[in-house]
Amino acid sequence: MQKINVGKKILSANEQYALNNSKLLAERKVLCLNMISSPGSGKTTILTRTINELKGKINIGVIEGDIQTDFDAQRIRATEAPVVQINTEGACHLSAAQVASALENLPVDGLDLIFIENVGNLVCPSAFELGENGKIVVLSVAEGDDKPAKYPVIFAKSKVLLINKIDLLQTKGQVDFDIERVKTDARKLNKAIEIFPISAKTGESMTTWYDWLLNSARQTSCTSKR
Amino acid sequence: MQKINVGKKILSANEQYALNNSKLLAERKVLCLNMISSPGSGKTTILTRTINELKGKINIGVIEGDIQTDFDAQRIRATEAPVVQINTEGACHLSAAQVASALENLPVDGLDLIFIENVGNLVCPSAFELGENGKIVVLSVAEGDDKPAKYPVIFAKSKVLLINKIDLLQTKGQVDFDIERVKTDARKLNKAIEIFPISAKTGESMTTWYDWLLNSARQTSCTSKR
Repeated sequence: MQKINVGKKILSANEQYALNNSKLLAERKVLCLNMISSPGSGKTTILTRTINELKGKINIGVIEGDIQTDFDAQRIRATEAPVVQINTEGACHLSAAQVASALENLPVDGLDLIFIENVGNLVCPSAFELGENGKIVVLSVAEGDDKPAKYPVIFAKSKVLLINKIDLLQTKGQVDFDIERVKTDARKLNKAIEIFPISAKTGESMTTWYDWLLNSARQTSCTSKR
Repeated sequence: MQKINVGKKILSANEQYALNNSKLLAERKVLCLNMISSPGSGKTTILTRTINELKGKINIGVIEGDIQTDFDAQRIRATEAPVVQINTEGACHLSAAQVASALENLPVDGLDLIFIENVGNLVCPSAFELGENGKIVVLSVAEGDDKPAKYPVIFAKSKVLLINKIDLLQTKGQVDFDIERVKTDARKLNKAIEIFPISAKTGESMTTWYDWLLNSARQTSCTSKR
C-alpha cells in the first residue's frame, strides 16, 4: 500500500509561502514581527500604544488574525495605522498564505515595521512560520508564572518575551506571579531571549521595548537586500 | 484520481473512542466534565478548591491534560483526589483515546464525578469530543470581555461558563471587564448556558457552582443505565 504523507505536503506549502513572504519583506527592507500569546494577554493594547508612541519615528502596519470579528482591527484603525484583518473562521493559527494575501493589501513600501497579531493561542501558531523576522511572545501576569515550563515551544522560538499587565502586581497579593521564575525558565529554553516586563495599559516600562523595536527596524533597513 | 478523505477518518476514530468512553461512564454512573480555557484562567485552582470543599459529599477524580510537565497533577494530588496526568508532547488538545487510557488508570467505580482538565487552549479542544457529559468553559476577567464574540465555538458548546478571578474586579479600575457584556454575548450563542462568576482564589460565589455540580452528579447517578 502506498503511504501518502499528507502532513509533510501541507507543511511544505506553508513553508513555500513563508519563504516568499520573507523575500518580499527583505526586498522592501521591512521588519516583520509575529506576535503570539493566549487570548486576552493584551496584544492589541500593546500594539495600539506602541503605534501611538512611535508615531513620527517609524511607520507601522498591522495584520490582524482572529477567528471571528474585526474588533482588534477597529482598535488598530483608530491609531490611523494601516491594518488588514484576516478571519480564520475556526482555524487556530494564521497561515503564510493568508499573510501573503494580507501583504498585498498593505502599503508595504511606506512601512518600516509590520506586526502580525496571530490568533490568540499559545500552542498552534508557534508551529507555523509566516515569513517573519522574529516572534514576540506575550504573557500576562494574570496567566501565572508556570507558563514557560508548560508551553515551552513558543518561548524557545521567540526573540522577545513581553511580560504584560505588571500593573496588576502593584497591589500586593492581587496577582501571585514570580517574574524571576519566568525569566529563569524562559532563559533555560532560550538563552538569547529578550525579556521586557511592561504594562501596556499604564505605559510603565515600555521604553526598553520601544528602543528594541527602533533598533531592530534600523538593522533590518540596513542589512536587507533590495 | 481517488480522493482520500483523511480528515474524516481521523475524526471518526476519535468519535469511536469518545462513544466508548461515554458508554463506560454511563454504565458506571459517573458524571464527566471536560474543562476548557486559555492557559492561566485558573482551571487547576478551581479544581483543587472544588475537590476540597466537596469532600465527603461526592468523590471526584481528575484527568490532567498538559503539553509538558505534571505541575497541575501535583497540585491535584495534594487534595488526595485520584489523578492521572496525560502529556500531549506538543499536541494542542486531548484526544478521546488518551482519555480512554486514563480512565483505565482511575478508580472509576468509586467516583461520582471525573473532571478532565484539557490543554490550555480556547480553540482546538472544543473540536474534539472526549465522551464527556458536558463542557465547562472558564474565562478569567483578566482575559477581557470580548472573548465569547471572538472565540464563539466553545461558548456555544458549553453547559457552564465560569467567569473566574472576579477578585481582580474588586479594586476599582484594576481590570476593565463588563460581566453583563459577557453574559449577553454568551447567551446569544447558547441560550441554555449556566453562568457563574466566581473567584477560585478567594472562594467568593463558589456555592452556586457547587450546587450545580452536586445536582448534576445526582442526576447522572439516577438516569444512567447500568
